[in-house]
Amino acid sequence: MSPLHPGPLARARLLTSPSVAPEVIHELERITGRPAGPSPATAPDGPVGYDGPVVYVGDLLPEALRTPDLLWFHSVSAGTDALLAAGPWPEGALLTRTVGRMGERIAQYTLAWMLAECQSVPEHTAQHSRSEWRRLPSGLIAGQTAVIHGTGRIGSAVAQLLRACSVRTVGVSRTPRDVPVGFERVVLAGTGEETTALAQARWVVSTLPLTDATERFFDEARFSAMRGAGFVNVGRGATVDMPTLEAALHSGAVRRAVLDVLPDEPAGPGDRAWRLPRTVITSHSAGITADEDVVTDFAACWEAVAEGRTPALAVDTRRGY
Amino acid sequence: MSPLHPGPLARARLLTSPSVAPEVIHELERITGRPAGPSPATAPDGPVGYDGPVVYVGDLLPEALRTPDLLWFHSVSAGTDALLAAGPWPEGALLTRTVGRMGERIAQYTLAWMLAECQSVPEHTAQHSRSEWRRLPSGLIAGQTAVIHGTGRIGSAVAQLLRACSVRTVGVSRTPRDVPVGFERVVLAGTGEETTALAQARWVVSTLPLTDATERFFDEARFSAMRGAGFVNVGRGATVDMPTLEAALHSGAVRRAVLDVLPDEPAGPGDRAWRLPRTVITSHSAGITADEDVVTDFAACWEAVAEGRTPALAVDTRRGY
Repeated sequence: MSPLHPGPLARARLLTSPSVAPEVIHELERITGRPAGPSPATAPDGPVGYDGPVVYVGDLLPEALRTPDLLWFHSVSAGTDALLAAGPWPEGALLTRTVGRMGERIAQYTLAWMLAECQSVPEHTAQHSRSEWRRLPSGLIAGQTAVIHGTGRIGSAVAQLLRACSVRTVGVSRTPRDVPVGFERVVLAGTGEETTALAQARWVVSTLPLTDATERFFDEARFSAMRGAGFVNVGRGATVDMPTLEAALHSGAVRRAVLDVLPDEPAGPGDRAWRLPRTVITSHSAGITADEDVVTDFAACWEAVAEGRTPALAVDTRRGY
Repeated sequence: MSPLHPGPLARARLLTSPSVAPEVIHELERITGRPAGPSPATAPDGPVGYDGPVVYVGDLLPEALRTPDLLWFHSVSAGTDALLAAGPWPEGALLTRTVGRMGERIAQYTLAWMLAECQSVPEHTAQHSRSEWRRLPSGLIAGQTAVIHGTGRIGSAVAQLLRACSVRTVGVSRTPRDVPVGFERVVLAGTGEETTALAQARWVVSTLPLTDATERFFDEARFSAMRGAGFVNVGRGATVDMPTLEAALHSGAVRRAVLDVLPDEPAGPGDRAWRLPRTVITSHSAGITADEDVVTDFAACWEAVAEGRTPALAVDTRRGY
């Protein structure tokens, strides 16, 4: 990822996806100091030629822009797997993404479900509806071990919040790296150390993005290494081999599952996933990107680009995150 | 509270309530270096004279021990309101209590219910049971304001954990004091500052003990100052005027209530409290004292007493906490 040239950036047109809200477009125009045009996918005259450099803000890349004219694409979401899977990425085009407060959001989601189990939240709710006074477990998550797959911004945010509840945190990384804040230690994926960690885990939390290397990452070997862990997936659904998860729930290797994401979304009423035992599916609700997140993150990228730096939110389009 | 004299302590007998578990008694014998005897309430020959100094560990004080011979009573729970309400406290007797990890426990309970609302935990659970895929609110508690009544160990533990989720924390204290860790600021109860804080609060969390000064503390003035706050009571039930809470739930001044405690416990199936709108009652499950907490806290008190210090867990029997 080399810095963008100031010349093309200065004369680039700003285009946005149909999904981008008018208030966001207004802010993008203010930041870039130019008017925004519509996506070629929705231009009144159909896909027309867009000569000259383009800065695009949106979700998916219109085919008409899959050209060397695409200077920079800013994704309104954090996950760029669908975007990158749709076709070859235009040579030299910068890709940045919106992370917003996603780490914080996903951390609070994860903690909510961990605490809900320990504090018997669903059981208390059900018992209340029966007007029944009966003391239920109100346990501490302190001292439990959480193994967190993915040690980037989101994994680190989850780990930091869990540490505040005195949870032991072990990160699993696919590449050797320093121990990010929040983690007590980090082990390498696919090693005996990971297997040992999975066996000790009360919770296994996946924040993995979907790439060629993470498809069906949670497989027979990983699930069978668990000893009654709760499995929380806040990453991508296709990182999980669903028949193997089902078997692990039946065997007890997985104590319970909290799945924000599924390989096939949205899940229809007949989807087998609804009938997994001791599972809750939360309809891809965690880590939503708010409009203000898009504006804030685009502004930070714009500032970096204008100063000739590579934005911290740039995506390595070969790795996919 | 003056230090105990070493002489009487050395020859004091150790007595325990019937409710104290054998494993705890074993540890108490080890710590004090003497055998434990039964409570006079359960002694085979009925309440017999217990001459000489006594160290008692238990829940309630047997009448036969309401004498100057009672040197020290260690309560197996944190709340000593029932104990102190049962009769005049013997002159000069030390009262200590078990707090254990109660601050941590109550903090995790409180956070669990706050996050459960923001993350739609009950709604997701219900929706899952209908095999329905629909995105639900997954909000941050970050930036919300929590007003916490009681700025002692428990209130401070709650505040510290909420700060880790970037919640704004305002303490309410009945006496002027320094700002304990976890609080951004502390206001005095009964002042305009408290009223302003209640109006700004997204959450009002009570950790108050029950004393003469806190009975029906949450009254018309306090509840009507709230503007849609969620009210969490992890203190004592009788600190709340229940008809006023009911009116505040109906008017919307209180958005929802999470009540671990009630004025009358256990609540029978006909109790009016079960029919309060937008309320969950959790059967006094938060902040349980574990056997290991009794042993740990008694050992700390024993060490202080043996060294001529007043234990940190000593109760001011006039204030009641």
